[in-house]
Amino acid sequence: MTTFTFDKLVIFGVGLIGGSLARALRERSGAARGSRIVGVGRTRASAERARELGVVDDIASLDDDTELAAALAGADLVLVAAPVAQTQPLLARIAPFLEARTIVTDAGSTKSDVVAAARAALGERVSQFVPGHPIAGRESSGVEAALPDLYVGRNVVLCPLPENRPEDVARIDALWRAGGALVSTMSHEQHDRVFAAVSHLPHLLSFALVERILSAPDAALKFSFAAGGFRDFTRIAASSPEMWRDVCLANRDALVEELDGYTAVLAMLRAAIVAGDGAALEAVFARSREARTQWQERGGRASGHLAPK
Amino acid sequence: MTTFTFDKLVIFGVGLIGGSLARALRERSGAARGSRIVGVGRTRASAERARELGVVDDIASLDDDTELAAALAGADLVLVAAPVAQTQPLLARIAPFLEARTIVTDAGSTKSDVVAAARAALGERVSQFVPGHPIAGRESSGVEAALPDLYVGRNVVLCPLPENRPEDVARIDALWRAGGALVSTMSHEQHDRVFAAVSHLPHLLSFALVERILSAPDAALKFSFAAGGFRDFTRIAASSPEMWRDVCLANRDALVEELDGYTAVLAMLRAAIVAGDGAALEAVFARSREARTQWQERGGRASGHLAPK
Repeated sequence: MTTFTFDKLVIFGVGLIGGSLARALRERSGAARGSRIVGVGRTRASAERARELGVVDDIASLDDDTELAAALAGADLVLVAAPVAQTQPLLARIAPFLEARTIVTDAGSTKSDVVAAARAALGERVSQFVPGHPIAGRESSGVEAALPDLYVGRNVVLCPLPENRPEDVARIDALWRAGGALVSTMSHEQHDRVFAAVSHLPHLLSFALVERILSAPDAALKFSFAAGGFRDFTRIAASSPEMWRDVCLANRDALVEELDGYTAVLAMLRAAIVAGDGAALEAVFARSREARTQWQERGGRASGHLAPK
Repeated sequence: MTTFTFDKLVIFGVGLIGGSLARALRERSGAARGSRIVGVGRTRASAERARELGVVDDIASLDDDTELAAALAGADLVLVAAPVAQTQPLLARIAPFLEARTIVTDAGSTKSDVVAAARAALGERVSQFVPGHPIAGRESSGVEAALPDLYVGRNVVLCPLPENRPEDVARIDALWRAGGALVSTMSHEQHDRVFAAVSHLPHLLSFALVERILSAPDAALKFSFAAGGFRDFTRIAASSPEMWRDVCLANRDALVEELDGYTAVLAMLRAAIVAGDGAALEAVFARSREARTQWQERGGRASGHLAPK
């Protein structure tokens, strides 16, 4: 149904995220017919695997001015799909070769820091940058793990800047919808508050539980009796330490606010336990159970009140 | 391989836990050949379903002195499989009919409170009570959910009292092993510290996260973008509010100590985030990931250092 087409898409970082969008465009939607997809890596070798797998048509090295200029020449779309901490140096590296017609987007899981990085790296040309965040992933990473249907039915959040042209935002919206995603927009501040609450804080809490158990003299005994509840609760504590370090620092303000609010809930529950106030505990537990059950029954994601565009 | 046999087992509360042990003894091990299993409910009707399903041979009502006396006459084993808050009234009700030869055990998920309840209800005859905790469950409850293999390969913790006769502890150990379980022993204080850390605290934290999100004005927006990490982290927030209220109050001291230790870890992580100390965050996250991964690789439960008896 999509009529989305493009001339040339340049992907910086052809791993799971960038590679899956490339595969979706080529294999699912036909959007890439007659188009070129270029993969750029830190070296040519790091992008070579993506070309071998047929995920991209051409490759270039970030370190080579000539290759980088050739990669960006005539590009209508650029996707930065690298760890958020690399956004500013990457955009600064791209800036001298960026044509006025090119729209740049990213896939970072935090947005306020990415906006600040884009302003610092691009100056007035930040108008060409439409911040984005696909809510999708797999346990495995790298271009070998890329899937053409990774984004099907998943949320992508765009956080348009006041400087963005509406038609540029619409192009990035169409790009992700061509990949099968449901696209929503919100401010970068709201994005970061939402994901601090439903993603970043849970990861921090999960890591913290394992750390707490590890700190006990009888840690081995405790682990040996951990069962299903522990398994579910701590599954996300097996996530990448580097990525979550970066996310915690990149989304510092919203995460600390969320953590403080959470700590206040714990203090309230502690007081109820100490006071033997079973009614207060049961009220909280019942309310949480009801909300969690409803969320699960809705299919565990967006429904209705925030209509996908 | 088991040579465990018994004359008469009386189960107070023939639901998932008690019903599964009865089915295991009858259907798995042959231990029930020539034996009687009696189910006791609050009324005769509540136990009737267990007899219809062939899980027990006879039933009795807790409210009827004559039936209760007949049920306990000649019993060598009694299992109390009711919510922990009912332990004391149940044992007080049983006490007048308890023969000197009968060994009583329970299946409560907290132990210090159960020991206190047993001392209060049984007095000197607490020597006949061997506290126990099978670490097994299902999402569904009731005797219809009972399974003959619910305990196969699962941990059962016994918390023997100084007053217990070693041969009585050995009988309860053999009872659970006849059901397929791995049996360990520890003090009731240690049991409650271990399960506060690996089960009770995670449940509290999971309920608290949903409560925190619910308290936000944009709760609906947040839920709509919650994804896999949230799903795993909050699965246990769909647990029974009544049960977890009782567990939190029954294991108050150990849980508050564990919660305070956990809150201290959160404060340390908060300080690292505010200070921008990425190295400190990464060190905690990497240590947690390593421990969580090793736990998973060991099969997610007991291994080696605490040899099952």
